[in-house]
Order: sequence, then C-alpha cells, then structure tokens
Amino acid sequence: MKQRLMTPGPTPVPEETLLELARPVTYHRSGPFRELLKQVTDDLQYLFRTENLVATLTASGTGGMEAALASTVPAGAKVICLVAGRWGERWRNLARALGLDVVSVAVPYGQAVPPRHLAEALRLHPDAKAVCATLCETATGVKNDIAAYGLLVAATPALLLVDSISGLGCVECRTDEWHIDLNVTGSQKALMLPPGLAFVSVSDKAWEVMDAAAGAPAFYFDLRRYRDALATGDSPFTPAVSLVRALKVSLARIRAEGIEAVWEKYARIAAAARAGVQAMNLELFAQAPAESLTVARVPEGIDGNVLLNRLEKQYGIKLAGGQDTLKGKIFRLAHMGHIDAFDVLTALSALELVLLEMGHDVEPGAGVAAFQRVLAESVAAPQAV
Amino acid sequence: MKQRLMTPGPTPVPEETLLELARPVTYHRSGPFRELLKQVTDDLQYLFRTENLVATLTASGTGGMEAALASTVPAGAKVICLVAGRWGERWRNLARALGLDVVSVAVPYGQAVPPRHLAEALRLHPDAKAVCATLCETATGVKNDIAAYGLLVAATPALLLVDSISGLGCVECRTDEWHIDLNVTGSQKALMLPPGLAFVSVSDKAWEVMDAAAGAPAFYFDLRRYRDALATGDSPFTPAVSLVRALKVSLARIRAEGIEAVWEKYARIAAAARAGVQAMNLELFAQAPAESLTVARVPEGIDGNVLLNRLEKQYGIKLAGGQDTLKGKIFRLAHMGHIDAFDVLTALSALELVLLEMGHDVEPGAGVAAFQRVLAESVAAPQAV
Repeated sequence: MKQRLMTPGPTPVPEETLLELARPVTYHRSGPFRELLKQVTDDLQYLFRTENLVATLTASGTGGMEAALASTVPAGAKVICLVAGRWGERWRNLARALGLDVVSVAVPYGQAVPPRHLAEALRLHPDAKAVCATLCETATGVKNDIAAYGLLVAATPALLLVDSISGLGCVECRTDEWHIDLNVTGSQKALMLPPGLAFVSVSDKAWEVMDAAAGAPAFYFDLRRYRDALATGDSPFTPAVSLVRALKVSLARIRAEGIEAVWEKYARIAAAARAGVQAMNLELFAQAPAESLTVARVPEGIDGNVLLNRLEKQYGIKLAGGQDTLKGKIFRLAHMGHIDAFDVLTALSALELVLLEMGHDVEPGAGVAAFQRVLAESVAAPQAV
Repeated sequence: MKQRLMTPGPTPVPEETLLELARPVTYHRSGPFRELLKQVTDDLQYLFRTENLVATLTASGTGGMEAALASTVPAGAKVICLVAGRWGERWRNLARALGLDVVSVAVPYGQAVPPRHLAEALRLHPDAKAVCATLCETATGVKNDIAAYGLLVAATPALLLVDSISGLGCVECRTDEWHIDLNVTGSQKALMLPPGLAFVSVSDKAWEVMDAAAGAPAFYFDLRRYRDALATGDSPFTPAVSLVRALKVSLARIRAEGIEAVWEKYARIAAAARAGVQAMNLELFAQAPAESLTVARVPEGIDGNVLLNRLEKQYGIKLAGGQDTLKGKIFRLAHMGHIDAFDVLTALSALELVLLEMGHDVEPGAGVAAFQRVLAESVAAPQAV
C-alpha cells in the first residue's frame, strides 16, 4: 500500500533531498563545507526574513530552544512563558529546569494567548528578561500573534524568544519586522528534512545581552560559540554534514518558489482543509488556526485511536492524534513542507471513508467537494497548489 | 578521481547504510520506531560491553560529553580532567563552562596520562565528584589506559566519565569491566555513520548520584529524561530518525563480525600502519598509539599543509592535519569503521608518492612492503583484514 506521512513532524522529505542524504560523507573542516555552510546560512536568513546570523545546531528543536534560553537568561532571572499547549509547556519546563523564575501566562487548549495578556504580564513583571512564545502550537493547531507580541516586547528590555519549529517556512513569520530576538526552528517540519538540525536566529539586542553576561551555564548550547565559529566559516562542533547538505537542497526548493508564495499557498490549503473538515460534520479544535496543520475534534461516540489506526492500516495515511490529555480526542493533519493540496485532498478522502465506516453522519463526497470549492475560488488565477 | 575519506571523523559510511538514509522518513511515535530503538539500544549495549542503559542523543559527540557531565556533577563541584590533547581540553573547557572546579592533570602532547598521575590527583582531591578521561586522544593519536583509571576511580565515590568518541567500536573498550560510569561515543567514527548522534552509557553508580541530586541545570542533556522515555520505549525528543535507522544497519555489521574480532583486526592494521610509516622514515607522534589512527610528524623541511593538499588533489586521499599548535606539524591517518587494511595500504602508497615528490628521503616501496610484512605475519591463519 502507498504510505503517506501527514503528521506535523516529521513530514515527508522530497526524493531529491533523500538522495542527497545517500551521498558519501565528506570532511567538515574543508573549503567546500565552509562554502556550503555559508550558502545555507544565507538561505536560512532568507527563510527567516532576517539580516541576523542564523546558527545551525545538531539537535532536536528542543535543543534549539534550550540554546536560545540558556544563552540569554541567567539562572534565577525571570521569564514570561506564553502557554497555549504542550509546546508552550515545553518552554515553561525548560525554563524551570534551567532554574529560571517562570511567570506562566496560560490559556485553555484550543485558544491562542491574547496579546493583551502579555501586555499585562509585562506591566506586572518589568524585570522579566525574556518572553517565550510559540508561533504554531502544534498540539492544538493554534497560531499565536507573534507580530503583536513583538511590538510589546520590543518596547521593553526583555528579549522575545519564539519557537517556530512547526511553522517557519510555511506560516508567515518575519523575524526582523516582528522583533523576534531569538527565533528557533527545526529541520523536520516545513523545511522538508529528517529531524536532527535546529536553527536559531539571534538579534543584535540578544547578542548585546549575551556579551554583557559572564557566560552561559552551557557549552554545546552557548550560541556565542556558533557565532565565533561562523566568523571563520566553521561550525563549532562536528555538524551533521549529511543533513546540512540535504538542507541546501530543500532550501533551494523554497527559494525557487519564493517564501511569500509558499505562505500564500499554505494559507489557501489550510482554508480549504478547514472547509473540508467542517463539511464532514467535524468541529475544528483551534480557535485561531495555523496554516501548517488542521486539528479537529474526534466526534462523540468514535474512538480516536481506532480512527487513526484504520486510516493507517486501511489507507496508508498517517495522521497524528492528540497528546497527553488530548489523546483520543483530536486528530492532527499536517499541511507543510512537502505536503501539497492534493495530498490533503487524499487525506480528506480517506478520512471520510473511515468516518463513514465508523457510523459518523457524513454525506459521501461532502468533505472533498468543500475542499475543492475553496481551492477553486482561491486559484482563480493560476497559482501553485 | 576516486575519493577516499581517511580522517578520524567523519569516516566513510558503507553503501548499505547510506541507502538506508535515503529511505522515506517515518513517524517516531509508533510501534515500529519503538522496536527499532529497542534493537539499537541492545546493539549499543553489545558494542559498549555493558549491561547498562545506553542513551541515544541527537547531538555531536560534545553534546554527549555535556550530557554526561551536566547530569552528574553540580555547579561548583570538583572534577579531575585528564588532559593529553585537544579532546582532554574539551572536557576541561566544558567543565569550566558548567561552573565546575577543575583539577587539570595534563601531559605534553604525544603522551598518555599515566595512571599514577590520576592516583595522586585522587589522593589530593578526595572530594572530586568525577574524573573525565579520553579513550583515544584523536588530536595526537594516543590511547589512554582507561582500565587502570577505572580501577582507581571505582575505589572512590567519584564517577569515571570517558570520551570514547574516537575509538569505541574499534579500540578495545569494556564499559562494565573497566568501571566506566558514563561512556560517551559518537556516530561518525567507528560506527560508520554520518555525524549527528551521540551515545552515553550510564552505570548504576551514576544513576544513584543523579537520583540523589536535585536535578541537572539542563533539559535536553538531562540523561534522566532519556531513561524515563526509554522505559516506555520512546525517545524524549524527536530523534534523528534516519540516522537511528542507519545506526541499526551499521551496528548489525559490527555484531555480525563480532566486537572482539573487530578490535583484533584494527590492532593488526594499526601495527602494520605504524611499521609502514616508520619504514618511510617518518616519526610516530604518539608514544602510546591508539588502534584507531596513526599520527606521524611531518618531516623537517616539508610543509604539512602542502603534503595534505597534494594527497587530496593528486590522489583523492583525505587525511587530517594537526589542530591548533600542531597545525602543519603532524598528519593523522584514520583506520576505523569502514576503513580496512587495503584502504590503509592505499593511503601509504599515495603518501609515499607525495613524499618522494617533495624530496623526502624514502625508498620507493619501503612503506607498503613494511605494512604488508606486518599484515602477513598477523594473518598466518585466515582472518579478516
């Protein structure tokens, strides 16, 4: 059976990128590798919409988040964590593990954190050294208003740290314009690569904080080491050379398409996916949905685990379920990276078939037709889908 | 021109492992991935010669070293660092960055740290929480006597942390028998994989220390998270799934050959390589040479950088030069992982050709003949070379 990976990370990797991974390993302390690192750093700046340095770390996304936090906020200092789900909680748990004084600004699952909550927290905690936010809360499918947070934080001495792991390269994200001081993403989502690399952009404001500090209680995650090594074209530690080479292939693909065009494409796909899901009498879970994934509630009387298992076993479609308290209650369908409109159409078709089998009240064809209608409206002029 | 990578990391990756990297990416929160993680953990235990858990981290080797140190030694505590070169210095710099009180026991480059120096340090510093050592000092080609260190440290409350990144899977290393509490290795050396994974084995003595402590000032590198996740078959953070799958392929290769047979094979190759190098009127740099690489001085009057450039440009052979103060003064020829006796013979042949060109006094054929003689003696009975 044909297999289709549609989880919000890892996402499918294009064949040309996979083949790059199969090429022989090369030495990293060499002219060609320095050239490559220069090229991907430039491509990452394009992707991040930033003039700032973007460090490439060999680590999961969480490693990038730890690098951003450990490099800039000393133990005991205060941070404001905006929490709209499991990944906001990741910032909070990370900050606590690092011995920081955490102010948690939380909302119920399914909601975004309103900027006015952040404004209030900043007013109450003018001594906060950093604000930790999440672009797309992958656990719930919610998108937070990073641009609004950026305006608020830029007016204070605090730094804005954003986890854009599940979104950057798919969802609009303007690092410099939105005043994001440390923007963290990972390889295995919109960047169309296997997991293993994390990327962190660093603003001048953040470098100033780091350079004024005695030093980070970290070594591998001390971002200054990446800056110093990049100054001579190098990586401070042996990088995952195969993944860095593959990164170049994937980033070239995004650059060729144009990042704004990619954002628009996924906005269209996401709108169509939401229409399709709702036409199947399913309730959307996210109140402020992200363009990178669609999350819906599993209908009453249907076991979410059985639903996902049938999708996988009968139709080869791998969606993700809910995590922790949301286990069995929601499903999550990714549309980012190497997943296009027709892949989403396929997933909706299979989903409808399984829902019908399981006795859910849905008109056969309603989901795919609604998806198609929205897509057709948005592509009146010829555009990539 | 045919290219041959013979640097002490990254090392060449077998074709079957490269092809595994080109297979589609799969979801990590799944039954098949849990099975895979169980299998590679078992294979790693075999490789490490340990009954202890071996954690798989997505990081460079230095990340594994930081995990070992940050998880077990609290800020301000004392550690003894045995320093015989750049990688011993890595332990020292890491410990300082983590705010530890470092006792440095150093020897000149080219020498191993004598166990009596450690005995003396342990006597003078009975409050040391850990001893940090290096199995193979890749910067100089020296092998340290980890078994002797283990006997000394086991008699104290301190933990023995070993960087075996450039050696484990090639050089004899018996984690449990030698009383290594935290043994750290990486994917890109004897394990025949691209860089990107680090592995850390943890003894009961080390878990007791961690469980008695308040917690590590780390999150991604807190080894307890790996233990807790592995208890349910999982990885705590999105792992580099492609590399983990490739790891299974490479480890199966080592298991099929047998780890003792691998150790013996590289002992034979190393002895032959040393004979070959000396027969070319070159001086060995390491006084206690490791089986994973051969390091020799660049002869007087020859520019080491030119030598290495010619080897690469004219013959496609990539060796490594010296680092830092040893730049231009030594060259380093790896024999580990997917490099066999005939590859080393090839490198010696090319090296001799370049040395002749550059006016070095060497009898044509002397190096390869000496290599061959030692190899022939050691394979009187049919054995793998």
